[in-house]
This record gives sequence, C-alpha cells and structure tokens, in this order.
Amino acid sequence: MILVNGAVADSVAVTDRGLAYGDGVFRTLLIKQGKPRCWQRHYRKLAHDCATLAIPCPAETVLREELERAAGSEAECVAKLIVTRGSGVRGYAQPERLFPTRIVMTQPMPRYPVEFMERGVTVRLCSTRLAFQPRLAGIKHLNRLENVLARAEWSDAQTAEGLMLDPEGNAICGTMTNLFIVEKDALTTPELSRCGVAGITRERLLEAAVRHGVECRVEQLPLERVCSAQEVLLVNSVIGVWQVKKLSDRAWQPGRSASRVRQWLDEQED
Amino acid sequence: MILVNGAVADSVAVTDRGLAYGDGVFRTLLIKQGKPRCWQRHYRKLAHDCATLAIPCPAETVLREELERAAGSEAECVAKLIVTRGSGVRGYAQPERLFPTRIVMTQPMPRYPVEFMERGVTVRLCSTRLAFQPRLAGIKHLNRLENVLARAEWSDAQTAEGLMLDPEGNAICGTMTNLFIVEKDALTTPELSRCGVAGITRERLLEAAVRHGVECRVEQLPLERVCSAQEVLLVNSVIGVWQVKKLSDRAWQPGRSASRVRQWLDEQED
Repeated sequence: MILVNGAVADSVAVTDRGLAYGDGVFRTLLIKQGKPRCWQRHYRKLAHDCATLAIPCPAETVLREELERAAGSEAECVAKLIVTRGSGVRGYAQPERLFPTRIVMTQPMPRYPVEFMERGVTVRLCSTRLAFQPRLAGIKHLNRLENVLARAEWSDAQTAEGLMLDPEGNAICGTMTNLFIVEKDALTTPELSRCGVAGITRERLLEAAVRHGVECRVEQLPLERVCSAQEVLLVNSVIGVWQVKKLSDRAWQPGRSASRVRQWLDEQED
Repeated sequence: MILVNGAVADSVAVTDRGLAYGDGVFRTLLIKQGKPRCWQRHYRKLAHDCATLAIPCPAETVLREELERAAGSEAECVAKLIVTRGSGVRGYAQPERLFPTRIVMTQPMPRYPVEFMERGVTVRLCSTRLAFQPRLAGIKHLNRLENVLARAEWSDAQTAEGLMLDPEGNAICGTMTNLFIVEKDALTTPELSRCGVAGITRERLLEAAVRHGVECRVEQLPLERVCSAQEVLLVNSVIGVWQVKKLSDRAWQPGRSASRVRQWLDEQED
C-alpha cells in the first residue's frame, strides 16, 4: 500500500521538489507484527536529516500511524518513508511556506538467499567513488545517483553488495549497507563526515558494542585495512548483518562476529 | 500544461526512480512562437546526459511534439523537460527492462527586473561548495541538493544569483547559470570535468567566440581571477546573458561584453 500525505495514492505531484531536485530524505525500515521496528530511532534520524536540509519534519505520531496503516495485516514487510520539501515553483529557491510531502510505501520482505546470512556474501569493489560533500555527509537524502551508478556495475545474483570508496581510497559503505571490520575483537566502522550515509543499524551497533564492553572505533578505513581485517560485516535495517566472504581477491572463512553482533541487535530493539 | 509520457497529467508514479534517487536528467528551455529554441542542441545534450546514466533517451520527434503541444498557444514560455529511468522495484538495482518517464511542463516566462539585463546583477558568493564527482560532472541530472542548499543561502530579491566554488576554491558556475570572465577581450569559462553543469548556452558561446575570432579558454578559474577580471558574465537558456555588477566586495561598471555576447547568441540560433 502507498500513502501520500495520509491518503491512499500511487502518484505524487510532478512539481514535487523530491522529483525535481532530490530535495528530500528517506528511511527504509522493517515492520513486524504491524509495528515499525526501532521506530523511535528511525524517527530521530529522519528528524535530524530533515533539519539538516531545513525541511519541517512531519510529526512522529502521524508517520507512525501511516506506517501501521500502510502495513495493514502484513505480518512482516519493508516500509519506505520519504519526506520531501513539497511542491515548488520553478527554480531552486524555496517557496516561502513549505508543505512537505510524506510518502509511506510498504513492500514484501526481500527474499535474499539463506546462505547470505549463514555463510556470508560476495562483495564487489565498485569503481564508482563517493564524492566528498561535508554538507550532505551522513544524511539519507534523495540524491542517490552515486549509489545507482555503483549498483549498475554488476548484475550477477551471486554478488550481494558493492563496496564504495571515497576519492582517497578509504572504504565508506556498501551501496545499501554500512561497514564494520573486526580486528582482534575490536570493531571499526568508517568515519562519515565527508561522505556516506550514517544508518541507524550502524548507530545501534556502536551503542551495543559499548554495552558489551567491546571496543568500537569510528575512523578512516583504507581499503587495505578492510582486506586485512579478520572479519568484515555489512549491516542495515532490512538485512541485519551479513559477513563478507569474498571481496575482490580476498576470501574469508565464516567467523563468529556476524552472529554475535546479530544477537546484540536482537537483544535490545531500540 | 504538463504532459507525462504524452498524456496530460499533474502527477507521476510514486515508484518513479526520479523521485526515489534523482535517477534522471533534465533541460530547461525557452519556447518562442510555439517552437523550442535551440532544440537540436538541447536534444543532443539530453541524449548525451541520458547516455552517461545509461537511460534510453526518448525520440527527438516525440519530445519536440510534446513540447509544442504543452506550449499550446503561448507566445513565449519556459519549458522543463525531465527524463527519468522510470519506475523501479525497491533498491538501487535497475529493472531489466527500462521504461523511461518523460515529463514536459511549461510555465510562464520568469519576470526578472529589466535592470538585471541592462545594468547587471548582484551575485552572492555561496558557502556551499560543489563536490568533485567526475562520473556526474557536466551532466544536468536530478541530484541537485547542492544547488538547493546554495540557493537557500540568500532570500533578498536584489541578489540575482549565487556563485559556487569547488572544494579547491575554483569558481565553477552560478546556481542556475554558467560563468564566463572577460580579460583583455579574451573569454574564459571554467573547466567542468570534476563538477558543475555544462549548459548549452555556454557551449553556444564557446562556438560563437570561435566564429568571431575571439579567444575563449576553458580552464580552472580561481575565485581571485574572477574578482580581478574586467567583466564577469552569467549565462543560461532562459536569462541569456547577465553581467555581474557586484560580487562580495568587488563592483564592476557596465561593460560592452554582455551586449556583444548577447548579439552573438541572437544572430545564430542553433
């Protein structure tokens, strides 16, 4: 089901600035038993991203109600939530009064092969790099052509994800996932102040590591360090955690970290 | 009037990848006496930009017919032409078969003060910088948040445009215009291989300079060189040519170049 500003619809105004300029933000989240998972955290991130672009964020209760309505009787589904700056006249200048557009769509759970979870995934090293744009770094906005170009680099179903680098050769994230590496039981995830999206599963994992007394660093991560790590993990709200079993020439045996971290995420749904 | 895939409409599918990812390109052009101006050149650029993103470009005759139909009996109007990759399933991966969406919208001519043309414009130096993304540089795609952020830096009506720099401090373009400077009767326009949009009026002007035996260079243009130029010009398909009369602390007297260049553009409509 799709709701646009609370009403069942399958279309948005042609003049919406989300279409014209990618002038908006979004979230992808799981709905289980009719309830959006980690909703408070998703909403905080949405509100934060809206604030960065100076888009008034719709009320939390309104969005939650719409998510639950769109999910209907589905036991499990994926929801995408988009907030744009709304319709505008021609030109980049914003209308004096903003009426943001909110879009809630639900879709069936994606069916990834079970082995992705159990035995890890093959990852491609993308040649498309993420540009440094500190004004937009971390934000899940609608300007996603870099991800589209990166994802277009492969079409075989065996490759589950693509790793994206910044212009200096630091690993930043997958096209749809955040990245963690494991070294001597410590975790490290890339610093995202110049590019990349700071997803909520990454944030949850950083907090869970603290709770469990596991060191977790946020810093620049040159590709070489990823390749020489003991284990490499990819995370997002929909897939949870995947271990990387292959990246270019490097292969990894299944380790203990993916299931351990999965447990951390399961034990506290916040 | 708005046409979506040839039919009168005011909305597009929520699932359009133009909205989801800014996965598309656009053109803004003038229509005079019912005919799109410089159409062949606009179409060539549209086809080029589509090719860069691997979006099949709609046929030239189809788009021209839709532009003329949307313009209807308007003597003069502005048309915006958008081509997106079409609707998609969830995720960055492209559908196997693409059905691009084409959108044609016409709007009344914007009413800029006559003095912008006659006496020049005041320009703000924007703090929002353009990121280096060679894969997308030059292309007029729908990922335009940088322009939106830059345009949001001012709201006074006296400021007509904002100048955007790259991360190294080179002048690249206005939020909606291309830039030329005049030095000892030679023209220079910024090199756009790492960021910026290569507009068709810029291209026409480069060709016209050759025709008139005027030197015209394409190279990196540090801000200081813009400030010390004899004259500074901003161009696009809708405004034509504006001279800059003020940029930060620097002021310029009206020169001869704007009207000269305007004449070049008028004498050969290609």
